[in-house]
Amino acid sequence: MEGPSSRKMSGRGPVVAAASVESCRTAPFGRRPASTVSVVYGVMPPEAYRAAKPGGDQKLGPVPFFAAGISSVLHPKNPFAPTLHFNYRYFETDAPKDAPGAPRQWWFGGGTDLTPAYVFEEDVKHFHSVQKSACDKFDPSFYPRFKKWCDDYFYIKHRGERRGLGGIFFDDLNDYDQEMLLSFATECANSVVPAYIPIIEKRKDTPFTDRHKAWQQLRRGRYVEFNLVYDRGTTFGLKTGGRIESILVSLPLTARWEV
Amino acid sequence: MEGPSSRKMSGRGPVVAAASVESCRTAPFGRRPASTVSVVYGVMPPEAYRAAKPGGDQKLGPVPFFAAGISSVLHPKNPFAPTLHFNYRYFETDAPKDAPGAPRQWWFGGGTDLTPAYVFEEDVKHFHSVQKSACDKFDPSFYPRFKKWCDDYFYIKHRGERRGLGGIFFDDLNDYDQEMLLSFATECANSVVPAYIPIIEKRKDTPFTDRHKAWQQLRRGRYVEFNLVYDRGTTFGLKTGGRIESILVSLPLTARWEV
Repeated sequence: MEGPSSRKMSGRGPVVAAASVESCRTAPFGRRPASTVSVVYGVMPPEAYRAAKPGGDQKLGPVPFFAAGISSVLHPKNPFAPTLHFNYRYFETDAPKDAPGAPRQWWFGGGTDLTPAYVFEEDVKHFHSVQKSACDKFDPSFYPRFKKWCDDYFYIKHRGERRGLGGIFFDDLNDYDQEMLLSFATECANSVVPAYIPIIEKRKDTPFTDRHKAWQQLRRGRYVEFNLVYDRGTTFGLKTGGRIESILVSLPLTARWEV
Repeated sequence: MEGPSSRKMSGRGPVVAAASVESCRTAPFGRRPASTVSVVYGVMPPEAYRAAKPGGDQKLGPVPFFAAGISSVLHPKNPFAPTLHFNYRYFETDAPKDAPGAPRQWWFGGGTDLTPAYVFEEDVKHFHSVQKSACDKFDPSFYPRFKKWCDDYFYIKHRGERRGLGGIFFDDLNDYDQEMLLSFATECANSVVPAYIPIIEKRKDTPFTDRHKAWQQLRRGRYVEFNLVYDRGTTFGLKTGGRIESILVSLPLTARWEV
């Protein structure tokens, strides 16, 4: 991993390098599922820094930053096959422009979570058990802590509903060795396929009716609400003026509201 | 119109009275079109006050308020028939809880705007001319000022696109006689039917293909993005914990993203 001193800075807003790689077969999904790999560096306006790191110093000037991450959201066609989201990212900031010598910061963030329209207990149990195994290799406190964080984070406040059935989520993680946290995030990312693909294989060909599809579409409306109103990554992306196709790739192909 | 002293206050968040009235025939629309009449009073948390009145005093405590308005959004089924939105509202605030004797405020806001998926010049011209006639009865400066305000307001910053083709929009209007502004807002509301219904009558039965419908759905995705990310009324509603069915009634029945 590069240190803060080796990266290139841009004075004219963020520079984004993004690559889409096909992470699984297209057939069960509404459109080609893509994993986005992003490497971004530049200068954050203070409001974007606050979106990325709420509760920080409110009087900052522009903050040089570097971020690298992988993320993916998969919305299956079949209403019985759940939506999957994962994102693992590394962030670091340099001293604000108007405060040379001020402390640099770095942190890891990410998570993997499942959002079914119809709930199958055995799928949920399998999904959570894979997340637990990944976490337990590093620290027994990780899984309970990051599971709760996930439940708390994916909460649609104006609905009084959670977005899905959870998984793991963490952010601002910097109180461990940097290489240890990189290994942990890598392990989590490697756990996505064994957690999700068996569920997709089992559910993708289940027969369904228009009524099942309408319910799935309504649940996807909730997904859109969460992502546009609350999601920290989306908010950060919209405020830094990043590549809109990458920022909003988490939205489903179609959604429905019957408010 | 009631003055600030005659209203009832609640200490436990906003109280909402909302009524839905059928404002036009159901057939051309994706679901029953509803006009929402809202009368809301209560105590605004400071962040909601800032959403309702950006640029105000940032150090306020909870602010007692009263708001009354009518609003409607109509999303036709036919891709050649445009979406209509209108909203006219009156707001007043009392002195903040921790600052007795501080100035009370009142203001009118609202507007009417058109969002076609396919543009017909004659429709747009007709729509704008009705708005102009309504405005010109009160002040010749209103139409150019409120037309520009509408263009500036309905801007999806992260897309670099306007939500639709505009109309009129104003907010924080309190620099005229209160009764005059009530008459003006009433005139604007009364202009909705002559501005919109002739267009619907002309376009609602135009034959269309799946390709036209897909484009309409994509444009409706943009409508959702604007409303959830930027719209002042939606933001205010979500933050005050109002009735979710009323706040999000502006969303279309269905939308699509191909980001």
